[in-house]
Amino acid sequence: MERTEISSLGEFGLIKHLAKSLPNTLPTTIKGIGDDAAVIDTGGPHYQVISTDMLVEGVHFDLSYAPLKHLGYKAVVVNLSDICAMGGKPSHITVSIGLSNRFSLEAVEELYAGVRLAAEVYGIDVIGGDTVSSRSGLIISITALGEVAKDKVRYRSGARDKDLIVVSGDLGAAYMGLQVLEREKAVYESTPGVQPDLQGYDYILERQLKPEARVDVLRLLEQLGVQPTSMIDISDGLASEVLHLCDASTMGCAIYDEKLPIDPTVISAAEDFKLDPSLCALNGGEDYELLFTLPIGDFDKIKGNPHLTVIGHMVEGAGPQLIARDGSSHALVAQGWDAFLSKD
Amino acid sequence: MERTEISSLGEFGLIKHLAKSLPNTLPTTIKGIGDDAAVIDTGGPHYQVISTDMLVEGVHFDLSYAPLKHLGYKAVVVNLSDICAMGGKPSHITVSIGLSNRFSLEAVEELYAGVRLAAEVYGIDVIGGDTVSSRSGLIISITALGEVAKDKVRYRSGARDKDLIVVSGDLGAAYMGLQVLEREKAVYESTPGVQPDLQGYDYILERQLKPEARVDVLRLLEQLGVQPTSMIDISDGLASEVLHLCDASTMGCAIYDEKLPIDPTVISAAEDFKLDPSLCALNGGEDYELLFTLPIGDFDKIKGNPHLTVIGHMVEGAGPQLIARDGSSHALVAQGWDAFLSKD
Repeated sequence: MERTEISSLGEFGLIKHLAKSLPNTLPTTIKGIGDDAAVIDTGGPHYQVISTDMLVEGVHFDLSYAPLKHLGYKAVVVNLSDICAMGGKPSHITVSIGLSNRFSLEAVEELYAGVRLAAEVYGIDVIGGDTVSSRSGLIISITALGEVAKDKVRYRSGARDKDLIVVSGDLGAAYMGLQVLEREKAVYESTPGVQPDLQGYDYILERQLKPEARVDVLRLLEQLGVQPTSMIDISDGLASEVLHLCDASTMGCAIYDEKLPIDPTVISAAEDFKLDPSLCALNGGEDYELLFTLPIGDFDKIKGNPHLTVIGHMVEGAGPQLIARDGSSHALVAQGWDAFLSKD
Repeated sequence: MERTEISSLGEFGLIKHLAKSLPNTLPTTIKGIGDDAAVIDTGGPHYQVISTDMLVEGVHFDLSYAPLKHLGYKAVVVNLSDICAMGGKPSHITVSIGLSNRFSLEAVEELYAGVRLAAEVYGIDVIGGDTVSSRSGLIISITALGEVAKDKVRYRSGARDKDLIVVSGDLGAAYMGLQVLEREKAVYESTPGVQPDLQGYDYILERQLKPEARVDVLRLLEQLGVQPTSMIDISDGLASEVLHLCDASTMGCAIYDEKLPIDPTVISAAEDFKLDPSLCALNGGEDYELLFTLPIGDFDKIKGNPHLTVIGHMVEGAGPQLIARDGSSHALVAQGWDAFLSKD
């Protein structure tokens, strides 16, 4: 019996491989596997958007520094971010959890307090789920539903030559927050009783522990009167997501290092850790910002907006390129977080 | 810090407790937590029905005797059964899996071959999912979507005094199949190399390893011109599900031991194991048959149908009762499979 290691494909390779054997045949399936969320036609005035994520303790989160309430909040938000990435408005979620007997009722209540808070903040209903035993720690599996006007649904595909590549907010903060938490955990483990030194890191810690889904950015784009030609959310790192857009749109791109939006606290934290802030922004991940493309004619509509940054443009007939500050051009590669490669 | 063990509430107690803190506020939420599936209004001609289940290796399945392809099939079916229990027609699913590095690509392909087969058999599309690492074994989390005509949606509530209690198919077979598999596993572990003795157990093994969702029963009810007043699927054992119907409908009932539909192979297998076949039917679980109530006036429409068995009737103002073969009456209790009590 042949044995192929899953790590030889990676998470995205595995998904592509499996998707090939699962053809969609229903006319109600508008988009199946292969984007941030699926899109189906339920016969109503809008399309429905569906996304699902599984988070596993020890792989996706570490309860030694992630408070359960924050974890519940974040687990919801990462799914809502996928709904947003399709241009959709989140409406309902289901929340399933696997629990080892290490977890008390009070711990589960904390987790659900975070789920409830996210539901309140984003105006969604928790309509179901499952609660089961697990042999090892906590597992959270959430499915999010949302709706999107039929002419407003955005895919990874659709970017055209010369389209501007735009990102919301700033990048690399969640990754730097994780570095600080991991450092303080290591200190605590070697010297128990020492209080963690988290002074001055509020922003990056909040970005790591309590991210938000950018429903506000969708509203902003609506107000600005711009319609992205393609869109994705940044969960695995900017570079990885840019490559997805390029791949789905059969296009290359030029991303300018000097344009990457990086918060000053990220730059100073990166200096503390002797890390290159640009690499943190490119590969850190968990930003949950929106990455999208716009026709170049829309530049005036977004120019100077503090929430949006043009970081490059699409290029037909070339590969994805990163343009360094010295003007040199490099193939853009994703060194982002891959659950199957880095953490198993 | 107080610590309340989750086992002190049980799975259903935990769900009820959590649901209290998660009120639904959207007008599009027709039914939230507390039935076999949620029901939402997407603005289309039908309601949408949503169900989700998480299956954990070592808790819900044992790969030493459950072939991966069967497991993939069953994982889909148990969700489709929940859609059926609302009167719904399944349409789409998402499939998320957590995998330890023990699993090869070939193993994952086997699992998905079962998922694909179920999708083909039931005419549904697999539209998404997630694939992540797990620290210990296989986790499968599936969400199923379906649709139901607005006047055909069936809840656990709705049963009225004197309504007939009806069950499709037969009961206890999946449980007896599990007993056989567990016995042969124990034999194999004590004497490796011994071939398992599964002769004559085909029916009960198939019921355990490859159950079906009774979409055909919904069609049958349609053809017979009967409309259940309440409905649930039998996943945790008949007794447990009858109690859910009684609880949701604020009603008691009388269930007649002598009426329970039990296949002859279940009776003979139960004899082999010195088990009471009635107790297997009442508490075994994993039958995935439909349990529903009908107005007494519908009796002539279903009388003698080989797929349907009247096992009792609802009773207002009394508790749920089991009427033994000697005519004596006993409080109906659920000793069904509870993931938090029996397996952790």
